[in-house]
Amino acid sequence: MNGISALFLPKSVAVIGASKSPQKIGYRILNNLIRWKFEGKIYPVNPKYNEILGLKCYPSILEIPDDVDLAVVTIPAEATPHIIEELGKKGVKAAVMIPSGFSEIGRRDLEQKIVDIAKKYGVRILGPNVFGIMYIPEKLNATFAAETLDPHPGNIALITQSGALGVALIGWTKMENLGLSAMVSIGNKADIDDADLISFLGNDPNTEVILIYMEDIRDPRRFLKIARRVTLKKPIIVIKAGRTKRGIRAAASHTGALAAPYYLYEALFKQAGILYSNSITEAFYWARMLSAPYHYYGDNTLIITNGGGAGVIATDTIEEKGLKLMELPDDLKRKFKEILPPYVQVGNPIDLAAYADRDSYYEALTLAIRDKRVHAIIVINVHTVHAIPHEVADGIIEAVEEENIYGKPIIYCGIGGEKAVEVIRYVNERGIPAYWGPEAAVSALYAFITYHNNKRKIIEKGIVI
Amino acid sequence: MNGISALFLPKSVAVIGASKSPQKIGYRILNNLIRWKFEGKIYPVNPKYNEILGLKCYPSILEIPDDVDLAVVTIPAEATPHIIEELGKKGVKAAVMIPSGFSEIGRRDLEQKIVDIAKKYGVRILGPNVFGIMYIPEKLNATFAAETLDPHPGNIALITQSGALGVALIGWTKMENLGLSAMVSIGNKADIDDADLISFLGNDPNTEVILIYMEDIRDPRRFLKIARRVTLKKPIIVIKAGRTKRGIRAAASHTGALAAPYYLYEALFKQAGILYSNSITEAFYWARMLSAPYHYYGDNTLIITNGGGAGVIATDTIEEKGLKLMELPDDLKRKFKEILPPYVQVGNPIDLAAYADRDSYYEALTLAIRDKRVHAIIVINVHTVHAIPHEVADGIIEAVEEENIYGKPIIYCGIGGEKAVEVIRYVNERGIPAYWGPEAAVSALYAFITYHNNKRKIIEKGIVI
Repeated sequence: MNGISALFLPKSVAVIGASKSPQKIGYRILNNLIRWKFEGKIYPVNPKYNEILGLKCYPSILEIPDDVDLAVVTIPAEATPHIIEELGKKGVKAAVMIPSGFSEIGRRDLEQKIVDIAKKYGVRILGPNVFGIMYIPEKLNATFAAETLDPHPGNIALITQSGALGVALIGWTKMENLGLSAMVSIGNKADIDDADLISFLGNDPNTEVILIYMEDIRDPRRFLKIARRVTLKKPIIVIKAGRTKRGIRAAASHTGALAAPYYLYEALFKQAGILYSNSITEAFYWARMLSAPYHYYGDNTLIITNGGGAGVIATDTIEEKGLKLMELPDDLKRKFKEILPPYVQVGNPIDLAAYADRDSYYEALTLAIRDKRVHAIIVINVHTVHAIPHEVADGIIEAVEEENIYGKPIIYCGIGGEKAVEVIRYVNERGIPAYWGPEAAVSALYAFITYHNNKRKIIEKGIVI
Repeated sequence: MNGISALFLPKSVAVIGASKSPQKIGYRILNNLIRWKFEGKIYPVNPKYNEILGLKCYPSILEIPDDVDLAVVTIPAEATPHIIEELGKKGVKAAVMIPSGFSEIGRRDLEQKIVDIAKKYGVRILGPNVFGIMYIPEKLNATFAAETLDPHPGNIALITQSGALGVALIGWTKMENLGLSAMVSIGNKADIDDADLISFLGNDPNTEVILIYMEDIRDPRRFLKIARRVTLKKPIIVIKAGRTKRGIRAAASHTGALAAPYYLYEALFKQAGILYSNSITEAFYWARMLSAPYHYYGDNTLIITNGGGAGVIATDTIEEKGLKLMELPDDLKRKFKEILPPYVQVGNPIDLAAYADRDSYYEALTLAIRDKRVHAIIVINVHTVHAIPHEVADGIIEAVEEENIYGKPIIYCGIGGEKAVEVIRYVNERGIPAYWGPEAAVSALYAFITYHNNKRKIIEKGIVI
């Protein structure tokens, strides 16, 4: 087991600085490990106690009778060099360094010191200045997050260079019903960096999408090499902050991020086939879409709508993003006309119009899924006076569950008030990526098609662009 | 009273084709007028009934003993020419033409016919192919919207060329707690067009922002002339659909919209100082911001945050949108340092950091509001382990209510899950524009500053750009 595997798949975890006081980080991490029913061994370490939360507490890691794969360090920055020395002697493979007070406040010396000691012993370090790590498939919660932030299980791995933002984003994924496989707070990146993490997550069968909040990359060459390899297996989405002069300055005083102009990052992202966005919301639209079990068959997109205006907006957005609204072949047009009421405008968008109901959606979608020339479908459900969003959604779900055996990308788009939002949630829960508004739905399709095109370019030419 | 005033401020309304059957549009419109307690006179017209919903029903509009300002016509398209003739004879000033079946399905002849008759008598026509009109200050609901779509009262006027989208957007405004003054479904625009409506709404003391979903403009010169004049009084926001070749095609079969390349519209919007967006969501961010009682003092923006990462993203977005993050003068820096805990990074963003609480937000914001060199403030509240969004929000609200007597623009930005969203709603209800995420908050500021710059340019040069 190497250091990175030890981070995600430890058989035993020690909490250095474990505490009995519920306000303390050393208590909260220990409590999270126990609360999640981590199946490996858990060792609290603190000379002040004999027992915490029912577990035997050790005065020093060196006193633990068994091997320790992972140590979570929750003591003040000043005391960490000594502790890392002990972890090294104990043969610990990786350490999650919670404390702040290192390079982010200018103490590069102290940070270098712990890295040097860790290197000597072959201990890998996450952080310092981190919030911890969650790896849901192993029931590992080595963070000090509150219970209310237990994420939904899923296949999106989140890497964040900002602890606070990471915490907030977990809350967001819960509300949006997005499932996570992992959440890694990467902090000052004194040792373990994004490349290490995506290298592991690229091979992780529990992860389908990797989403990174990033302020800098320290070793761009290595990151590029690994990211390109990972892209062939699963998409990487990056929100890069520090894109402008003032932004870079702000990032430097936040995580000690190194200054490099954004165009270099953009070039790197492009070459690695990484999807990058300036918007948190958009990045999560993409993550939702790319975590769905869909396959790429081509670019021919069909829109089915009950609202003409919404259809026009979707059409414009598709064209503006360089996606492809298919021209309906005559025979397919005829087939649609046969099954749909006479007032329906059969074009692309197919406008089921004001009286659209469950059946017309079901029929139109079934036909579209069955036709191999249709490669992707956006189904728009405008909450009008006539359309009852819930019934319409059931028609859509039924068609998808019956017919979509080959995983053709299908995106649901709702527009309206509270009812519409409830239905979007409901459709998402049934495994169909669902969004409010045509802009979001088209953005999701854009990410899907761009990812698969990037992958193809890497296979064909070894590089994107 | 001219025709356009009659549309918004009628003293009497007739419903042509009023019905006793609750499914029918002729019932729903009558019921909405009564349900909203419209204070003028209401006359159902239908030869089949003597009475509907407790009101005397007339066999023809010509039998009504009093003057009728506005008629809402809910009979099939074919029968409308005869009815318009009668409205003319009766001296009705404006007619809301609900039925479809005109130019949007190619029947330009029939549409021209009713327009010609109406012109002869000086009757103004809204539509045909519309959903109706709501003007909240007059308790006028001449639409067939369901009761669940009664909008919150407010100062945003919504004009929509798509009925279905209009209905859905009312639902959205309710959910988002955005208040409306008016909702006008403008449909095929055979007679009354956007220029007529913004001309009225520009002078309407109950309207602060005009938001238009638009597929085309028939008389661009007139629109430009009037829009520029209105911009001097209040902002106009446009979502223009039909921006691409395929989008124009879709719009043509939707509302019979005329084809014109989008760059012409863009040029027109720019010259009139109109804010235009490709995104429904963004347009509503703007409407919320511009409906707040804020005044423009200059471009110097300050960010206060408890999350470094969120601060970096906000900084980048401000710079990318061409807004101005102020450099803090030394004396102001010193003042911030005096009142804030020692670990706070006093720059711009001011990063209150992990332990930020109600008091640090209150103190920082109070100082920022009081200093005249700070012209606009974005306050970011990341839902971390430490920050309790509700308490922080109360500190912010208190500072604003105590200090912001001159209406300096202040924008709240929350990031997190359900709790954060609840707090965003709460802050909005207290009159401070509040958004999820820095991108949305900065977009709102962008709209505010752009609008005021546009206004200045029109005053100085008679034209924007």
